[in-house]
Amino acid sequence: MNKNRVHNFNPGPAALPLPVLEEIRESFLNYAGSGMSIIEMSHRSKPFDEIVNDTVTRTRRLLKLAENFHVIFIQGGASMQFGMIPMNFLPDGHSADYVNTGTWSTKAIKEATLIGKTVKVIASSEDKNFSYIPSNFSVNPDAAYLHITSNNTIKGTQWHAFPNAGSIPTIADMSSDIMSRPFNPEPFGLIYAGAQKNIGPAGICLVIVREDMLAKIPDKLPTMLSYKTYTASNSLHNTPPCFAIYTLQLVLKWLEETIGGLEKMDAINHTKAKTLYDILDSSQFYRGTAEPDSRSLMNITFRLPSKELEKTFIAEASQNDLIGIKGHRSVGGCRASLYNAVSQASVEVLADFMKTFERKNG
Amino acid sequence: MNKNRVHNFNPGPAALPLPVLEEIRESFLNYAGSGMSIIEMSHRSKPFDEIVNDTVTRTRRLLKLAENFHVIFIQGGASMQFGMIPMNFLPDGHSADYVNTGTWSTKAIKEATLIGKTVKVIASSEDKNFSYIPSNFSVNPDAAYLHITSNNTIKGTQWHAFPNAGSIPTIADMSSDIMSRPFNPEPFGLIYAGAQKNIGPAGICLVIVREDMLAKIPDKLPTMLSYKTYTASNSLHNTPPCFAIYTLQLVLKWLEETIGGLEKMDAINHTKAKTLYDILDSSQFYRGTAEPDSRSLMNITFRLPSKELEKTFIAEASQNDLIGIKGHRSVGGCRASLYNAVSQASVEVLADFMKTFERKNG
Repeated sequence: MNKNRVHNFNPGPAALPLPVLEEIRESFLNYAGSGMSIIEMSHRSKPFDEIVNDTVTRTRRLLKLAENFHVIFIQGGASMQFGMIPMNFLPDGHSADYVNTGTWSTKAIKEATLIGKTVKVIASSEDKNFSYIPSNFSVNPDAAYLHITSNNTIKGTQWHAFPNAGSIPTIADMSSDIMSRPFNPEPFGLIYAGAQKNIGPAGICLVIVREDMLAKIPDKLPTMLSYKTYTASNSLHNTPPCFAIYTLQLVLKWLEETIGGLEKMDAINHTKAKTLYDILDSSQFYRGTAEPDSRSLMNITFRLPSKELEKTFIAEASQNDLIGIKGHRSVGGCRASLYNAVSQASVEVLADFMKTFERKNG
Repeated sequence: MNKNRVHNFNPGPAALPLPVLEEIRESFLNYAGSGMSIIEMSHRSKPFDEIVNDTVTRTRRLLKLAENFHVIFIQGGASMQFGMIPMNFLPDGHSADYVNTGTWSTKAIKEATLIGKTVKVIASSEDKNFSYIPSNFSVNPDAAYLHITSNNTIKGTQWHAFPNAGSIPTIADMSSDIMSRPFNPEPFGLIYAGAQKNIGPAGICLVIVREDMLAKIPDKLPTMLSYKTYTASNSLHNTPPCFAIYTLQLVLKWLEETIGGLEKMDAINHTKAKTLYDILDSSQFYRGTAEPDSRSLMNITFRLPSKELEKTFIAEASQNDLIGIKGHRSVGGCRASLYNAVSQASVEVLADFMKTFERKNG
C-alpha cells in the first residue's frame, strides 16, 4: 500500500488498480512516444485505433464472447441505456418483462414507461425492501426481452444464477459486477455496464450486443441513440471518450495479465466478500441487510445497532483511511464496495477495524 | 518546449496547456490529499462538488454570462446535441432555421430531419465549397430557433460577427472556438461545445442554456435527453464524466489565471493565425482555401501546388515534430489547428518550416 493512498471502498466511481493509475501517470505527457498526452491525440490516429481494438479484443477474450457479439462504447452511463434499450428493442404494441430488484431496476422500468413503452414487472423483491433476488417467476412468451440488474449496489444483492428466459433475449445492467466473475454470455441479447465501478472511470458505458438484436432496431432513431451507429463504426462515429477507453484498456490488461482472468478474479472476490460476511454472520453487533443466498460479492451492506453507532463507525473508519463505507443516501447504514481493484489487504484492514470497533462498542 | 513533446496542430482531440497536463499528472494518484485518484472519487463527494461548481463559475466569469444562463455538462459530444436540440426546442408543426456552413452544420440539419422535424436552410455556402460565411439572409419570424456553427474546422471558416435574429433565439455549435474570444452571449438560447478542441478532453460537451428556453421543453423526453435533467441537478443526475470536468476546470483556470481571460486569449489567437495567413498571402506556393473575410482563427486550411507536394509536406513536417497538419479526410490538403493551447512558439516553428519548404520546393 502506497502510504499516501487510502483504502477505497467507494460504491462508484471507485478504486482502480494502482498499476493502471501509475501507467496513466507515467505516460500522461507523452503517450507511447507520440510526444503528446493520450487526451491530446486524434481518435482517428493509429495509436488510438490500436487502443480501441485492443480494448474490444480483451473484452471478447475475458468474457469468452462468440463472434456474434459486438463490443461497443457509449457515453451517458447506464441511465442513457435505460432509455436506449426500449427505444431500440421494444416496438409499440409489444411489451418487455422487467424484474425489479432495487433502485436501478426501478429507474430502468420508469424510463421505459416515461417514453411510452409497455413494461410488465414479472417479479419484484420490493415486498422485503429489495433484500433478495426473486426466483419464482415466468417470462412472458411474447416479451420483447427480459431485463434484469445483475448486482444491486444499494441493497447489496446479486444474481448468482441468471434466469432462464428460453428464446427471449435477456438484457442485463451489469454496471456493478461486470468482469467480476465468469458467466455464459449466450442468453444475453444485450449487456451494459457503466464503467465506473469495476472497469474504469466514469464517462463510458461498455455495451455488448448480440448480432441478431440489430435487426430489431428501428430506422428513424436519433443517430447517437441507435446501437447500429456504434456497431457500424467500431464506436468511432464521432469522437469517443478517448481517455475512458484507454483506462478501460489498461484495467482489462491488468485483469488478464496480472490477475489471470475472470475465474481468478472471481476466486479473489469470493475471498474478499467472505472476509466481511464471516464477521456479519458471527456477530450480534453487525447485521447484514441482504438475504444470505442473494448476497452481493461486490457491495456488502450492513447495519449497526443504532444510527449513532453507524455515524461513529463511519467517522472512525475514515480516520483510519477506510473511505466510502457510508450506505447510499436513500437507505442509510453502511456499505463496503469490494470491486475488483479493492485488495484483500484493504479488506483485512477493514475487517480488523470492524472487530476492534465491535469490541469497543458492542 | 519540453523536448519529449511535439508541436501539436491536431484538429481535435487537440493540444492542451502543458501546465494543465502537469497538474493532472502530479495529482493523479492522490487528488488534493484525498488519498485517491480523481477517477476513483465519488461524484457525490465534497471535493468533486467543488470541482463542478468551480468549473461552472469560471465558465460564467469567462463568458460574462448573466444570471439567466445555466452551465451544464452532457455526454455524447456535439453529435448528441444535433438530436437533442430539435427534440427539446422544435415542436411538431413548427420549423427551425439553419445556416449551412459545412460538414457539421450539414450533420445538424440531417439529424433534425431524420427525427422527423421540419428545418429550413435559410443560407448556405455550399455553392462555393463552404469557403465563406453567408451574410445576406433573413431569419423566418416564426422560426423556433436559428442554428449556426460558429467555426468550421474542416473548411477553415468562422463567423466574425454573429447574425441578428431579433427575438428568435440563436443556437450555436461552438465546439471549435468556444473560449477562444469574447462575444455577447445575450442572443443565444443555447450554446454547445464538445470540449476536445479548445477546452478539454473528449467525452464532455459544455452546454449553456438560457432560462427562458427551459419552458419550451416537452415533458415526455427520455430523461437523459432533456436539458432540464441537467439544469435541475447541476449536471449530477447520474455519474458525470468526472475526469473530463476536472480537466475542463483546470483549462479554464489556466485561461483565467495564466492567460488573463478571453480578450487576451483572442489577441494571442489573432497573432498566431496572422503568422500563418501572412505566409499564405505572400506566397504563390501556398493557397488558403477560405475567403479572407471568413477565415478561421482556429483552423488554417491551405493547399500546396500538388497532392504529391502536400504528401511530402505533411511527411516532412511530421519528421520535424509538427503533428496533425493533414487536412480532414473528406477534403484533403493541409490544415493547422491553432486552438488556445497551441503556443505562438509552435506556430513560428511551423511558419519557419513552411518558408523553408517553399524555398526548397517552390
